[in-house]
Amino acid sequence: MINGVEHDKRERLGEFEIIARYFAPLAKNPAALGLLDDAAVLAVPEGHELVLTTDTIIEGVHFLAGDPPASIGHKALAVNLSDLAAKGARPEAYLLDLALAEPPSAGWLQNFAAGLRALQDEADIDLVGGDTSSTPGPMSITITALGLVPLGEAVLRRGAMAGDRVCVSGTIGDAALGLRLLKDPKLAANWRLSDEESEFIIDRYRRPSARSTLAAPLRDCGRAAIDVSDGLVGDLHKLCKCSGVGAVIEAERVPLSAAATKALAADASLLPVLLTAGDDYEIVAAMEERHESAFEADAREHGVAVTAIGTIEPGAGEVTVIHNGAALDLRHTGFAHF
Amino acid sequence: MINGVEHDKRERLGEFEIIARYFAPLAKNPAALGLLDDAAVLAVPEGHELVLTTDTIIEGVHFLAGDPPASIGHKALAVNLSDLAAKGARPEAYLLDLALAEPPSAGWLQNFAAGLRALQDEADIDLVGGDTSSTPGPMSITITALGLVPLGEAVLRRGAMAGDRVCVSGTIGDAALGLRLLKDPKLAANWRLSDEESEFIIDRYRRPSARSTLAAPLRDCGRAAIDVSDGLVGDLHKLCKCSGVGAVIEAERVPLSAAATKALAADASLLPVLLTAGDDYEIVAAMEERHESAFEADAREHGVAVTAIGTIEPGAGEVTVIHNGAALDLRHTGFAHF
Repeated sequence: MINGVEHDKRERLGEFEIIARYFAPLAKNPAALGLLDDAAVLAVPEGHELVLTTDTIIEGVHFLAGDPPASIGHKALAVNLSDLAAKGARPEAYLLDLALAEPPSAGWLQNFAAGLRALQDEADIDLVGGDTSSTPGPMSITITALGLVPLGEAVLRRGAMAGDRVCVSGTIGDAALGLRLLKDPKLAANWRLSDEESEFIIDRYRRPSARSTLAAPLRDCGRAAIDVSDGLVGDLHKLCKCSGVGAVIEAERVPLSAAATKALAADASLLPVLLTAGDDYEIVAAMEERHESAFEADAREHGVAVTAIGTIEPGAGEVTVIHNGAALDLRHTGFAHF
Repeated sequence: MINGVEHDKRERLGEFEIIARYFAPLAKNPAALGLLDDAAVLAVPEGHELVLTTDTIIEGVHFLAGDPPASIGHKALAVNLSDLAAKGARPEAYLLDLALAEPPSAGWLQNFAAGLRALQDEADIDLVGGDTSSTPGPMSITITALGLVPLGEAVLRRGAMAGDRVCVSGTIGDAALGLRLLKDPKLAANWRLSDEESEFIIDRYRRPSARSTLAAPLRDCGRAAIDVSDGLVGDLHKLCKCSGVGAVIEAERVPLSAAATKALAADASLLPVLLTAGDDYEIVAAMEERHESAFEADAREHGVAVTAIGTIEPGAGEVTVIHNGAALDLRHTGFAHF
């Protein structure tokens, strides 16, 4: 008992049972020491360096209280894998800090762990350690992910140069629409979405893509990259600021899903939302024009569509979006906490 | 804006200003990329492996709302450094996930960062990355710390053998008394503590030791070790369980501070509290008897007193505490969440 927080332990899973039953099966890498120690011990292969990233998702901020536990597990890991992918890193290991408001049910834990497992199997990454706490507040999940890159080959935010092409993976804006739809289900009718299309955008919000397979193509072709977590324009702005350049993107070239295309046709005012809202977890990269077609082909081979949406220009971080031949007025340029 | 959480940005520090102003100065290691990227890129020196650990501290669970921000920063890092020390690892780099309920004041952030800085300078570890979020719940701080050990030399929970001596660093039980005193200030009079002694035990709760200098002596002499975060008996029990042994410790040999000695003299019922309450962040280690005096001398040279308190016995995890010649009845054997 610490600070008077004491739970009724009868018929409830203890911290150690939770770890043994639900998380130890996710920790097959010997580095994890079976989750029986306070720490993991990990060897880094020669000629490689570590890429480290960490992100927290909080109930009511980054996911909704009613989201399925499997999708919460998926999202917590995906947002971190997305950062590794953008750096050109191969996923290697992750640590999980779980703060739970209520002693969780066995069913919740099982589904949460299943969401983690499905994505970790796909990305070939293992759980190697973590921490489980009770909290008087909302559920909070922090994952710290470690990836590997050949020495000196990490792709950074800095490095883009004037004249480079700007490419983005997948489609943009689906998650923002999915979140709006979850909060106001009648938007589906306004946007004339089929049930499948509604489910698609909600799934894009709850279970974002983690473009781990783009890591190698990015290392080969990219000069700079960032994952789109705070909105396409805002994140491209960060890349440009770090690189000491500007960018011009063409709104008409930004790849949209069928669902987003329909929604935009029904409500043209959604365009700035699609371009600036967060949670896409796609990758935006700058590369020399001569590498563009190789990148597209290589990405396609790894199952990911990428689209050229603009160019890097001389500048100091400005991102201009051209729409119908004129610069689009964007009041928001990305989500910032506080 | 995500999920309707939108802050009034006027005259408040933004996420990016917070990072630039308060955390970038803590991130001088080139691996941190100046905290300007989504990730850190860290080389691991040849012949070494990584030790990874992560711990979350939450307001109202692991620290109190009124604790000074510098001590909150200290504690968040110390609890992780303590795990690295117990594994024999030299601190190398850490990541910080900060979830804040309110846009913090400049003064709060400055003091919080100063608490981190003082301890990171002492332990020679650098901030290399992190994440800052807003939360509707209590403040929560997750640190993931990376340490280095020569290949194959990490000290684990497993490895203790029957006949080994059990040693513990520093003094035990101060933090538990400090927490009780913070919640009920009149206990100082009951326990006949001077103001200095009261301050000492409160400080032990708020700013636990991080025995980083014990890492090398532990690698040289220890067979197994664990840091005391959940209580001496409970954590020794975990070490014994992983090692497939038992332990007998003598209550009279457990090192107590002057303050704890006074409190115990005033209230003999405190003995089980001292032995089983958490937050000591001392190190308990098992070693061959022939290494004991070298360990003590080496630790003393590094400024840490260590005390032999018992022996490892054949067994399956049982920890027996002998007091006045008989086994002490311990209803609690360590704090567990849930």
